[in-house]
Amino acid sequence: MAKLEATDFELIVNPIDGEPTRAWVLEKIADPEVVGACIMHGQPSDKIDREFLDAASPNLKVVSTFSVGFDHIDVPYANSKGIKIGHTPGVLSNAVADTTVMLVLMTMRRVEEGIRLIKDNEWPNLPWAPFVMCGPAIGHPNLTIGFLGFGRISECVVERLLAFTSKSAPPTILYSNSRARDNQAEIDAEFSSRFGVTVRRAEKDEVAAQSDIVIVLCSQSPATIDLVNAEFLKKMKKTAVLINAARGPIVNSEDLAAALDAGEIFGAGLDVITGEPKVYADHPLVKHPKCVVIPHMGSADYDTRNAMADLCVSNAIAGVTGQPLIAEVKV
Amino acid sequence: MAKLEATDFELIVNPIDGEPTRAWVLEKIADPEVVGACIMHGQPSDKIDREFLDAASPNLKVVSTFSVGFDHIDVPYANSKGIKIGHTPGVLSNAVADTTVMLVLMTMRRVEEGIRLIKDNEWPNLPWAPFVMCGPAIGHPNLTIGFLGFGRISECVVERLLAFTSKSAPPTILYSNSRARDNQAEIDAEFSSRFGVTVRRAEKDEVAAQSDIVIVLCSQSPATIDLVNAEFLKKMKKTAVLINAARGPIVNSEDLAAALDAGEIFGAGLDVITGEPKVYADHPLVKHPKCVVIPHMGSADYDTRNAMADLCVSNAIAGVTGQPLIAEVKV
Repeated sequence: MAKLEATDFELIVNPIDGEPTRAWVLEKIADPEVVGACIMHGQPSDKIDREFLDAASPNLKVVSTFSVGFDHIDVPYANSKGIKIGHTPGVLSNAVADTTVMLVLMTMRRVEEGIRLIKDNEWPNLPWAPFVMCGPAIGHPNLTIGFLGFGRISECVVERLLAFTSKSAPPTILYSNSRARDNQAEIDAEFSSRFGVTVRRAEKDEVAAQSDIVIVLCSQSPATIDLVNAEFLKKMKKTAVLINAARGPIVNSEDLAAALDAGEIFGAGLDVITGEPKVYADHPLVKHPKCVVIPHMGSADYDTRNAMADLCVSNAIAGVTGQPLIAEVKV
Repeated sequence: MAKLEATDFELIVNPIDGEPTRAWVLEKIADPEVVGACIMHGQPSDKIDREFLDAASPNLKVVSTFSVGFDHIDVPYANSKGIKIGHTPGVLSNAVADTTVMLVLMTMRRVEEGIRLIKDNEWPNLPWAPFVMCGPAIGHPNLTIGFLGFGRISECVVERLLAFTSKSAPPTILYSNSRARDNQAEIDAEFSSRFGVTVRRAEKDEVAAQSDIVIVLCSQSPATIDLVNAEFLKKMKKTAVLINAARGPIVNSEDLAAALDAGEIFGAGLDVITGEPKVYADHPLVKHPKCVVIPHMGSADYDTRNAMADLCVSNAIAGVTGQPLIAEVKV
């Protein structure tokens, strides 16, 4: 806010302590004096769709989202009207990677079951035997760690996971992404040498079949919705875990619940889930002892949210003053 | 079991699928043909106290515990009877360090609150604003991480945490332990250079006052019971978290609950708690939204428990065949 207030622009700020109504957003955005907008992703009123863009001031130059994801924005339509879209990549990579690794550990080590057991007053009845409440070891030799999507956040995840994995028999990293970059071989070699492990692009079926840990970190797009479905889950190892720290719809919830019921995989850890935030205690995945669900907290640390706010505002100021955005969405 | 069965010794094995009764243990251990015993720590029948040792066969040479901790064993009294005590240090360091780091992340990032919110059907009502459900960043510049007790497990924790902390402004490591080793300065310098951070021994009051993360990993002894009490907690930063992955009684539960209520610290993560396993849903710390409690799962991965079993059995076989134990408890 201080950065915005230091400009010469007049500010229109959501007057309520909470989410603005869609009607308020559409009314304000129509004001022809409006040249830029900062929006909070995650609110139902956040959709930058045709309705929003058609209602908007003809002088609107930029919409800056407080998020790295932009699946709530019709970017081509905005661009066709000369409106640039800013987002906040990079600054949240560390925080999301922290959350991802936490979910890997929680899922492998059955923390959801452990917490429930205490709350269900079952701890006194837990027999003490060597393998009670055990899970697969993250330090197990020659693990395979698979990624769907392999960008900045995934690299940060690898860096963290290598502090936990076996030093004498390090893991292999497989990843699948929608298109190989031109210098893919070079990038993989650089990455392998930086981390001292083998990093290799693979088909998603191989990622499913080989991995002990599957981590979803790709963008949501029509091509990635339901990427993890019954077919994918059936190919996974029974001892493997699935982590989704990207967007809910990339993993099919019904198929995941069925796979957990059938013991097709060991467990799942979800920071995101289809239908959020309208997800309740009776949701099959929230109820499932083999699944831990947290409420989309991937980037929720103070430093990261401050950095996101700063980048969001900087994008907006750049857009309205005719400068290149610090981080513009290009599709 | 295979390793034990390969010996010439006759085996007496707990016949029930669960914990043996104390009466069964005392009856069997009295048999003068018994020369060694392997015991599972964590069972109420596990106490190797005067009653057990006075009842035991005069030919008992070794008791081998399936644990690194030995607070359930009267070691001096056993030794005075010529009975050696074996335990399982080292092999569980990685697994306990994994759990410790997981609890650090869960506590800083308010996962207990996040999980409850979903189960209480509150996710749809969660306002989306930049700092909702945020916690302190583990990547924050110049963190101080404090340890009570600084042995093998703590070193493994440091190694892991450094994958998450700031690279440009790395953390300082403080630790307090009961007695400085003779070559303490040398050990600290070696450790500092290995990890590229400052590692320094401090009084426990300084650990309390300076640390953003306080990690309890010392042994339980009369000197460490209630080490973390009201006085210690009041000295801590309001933004700091407390993790106990050692033994429950080292942290005073009533004092911790009061400190959380008063907002004297940010949160707590406990793998262990006084009175376990008789700890129920209405326990003030289990109920507290700022506290995550898991049921003593620190070493609960398959590889670790296999390695502990192997070391436990190896200690017993060494003891009964008159060889030095692989890992003998010395007090």
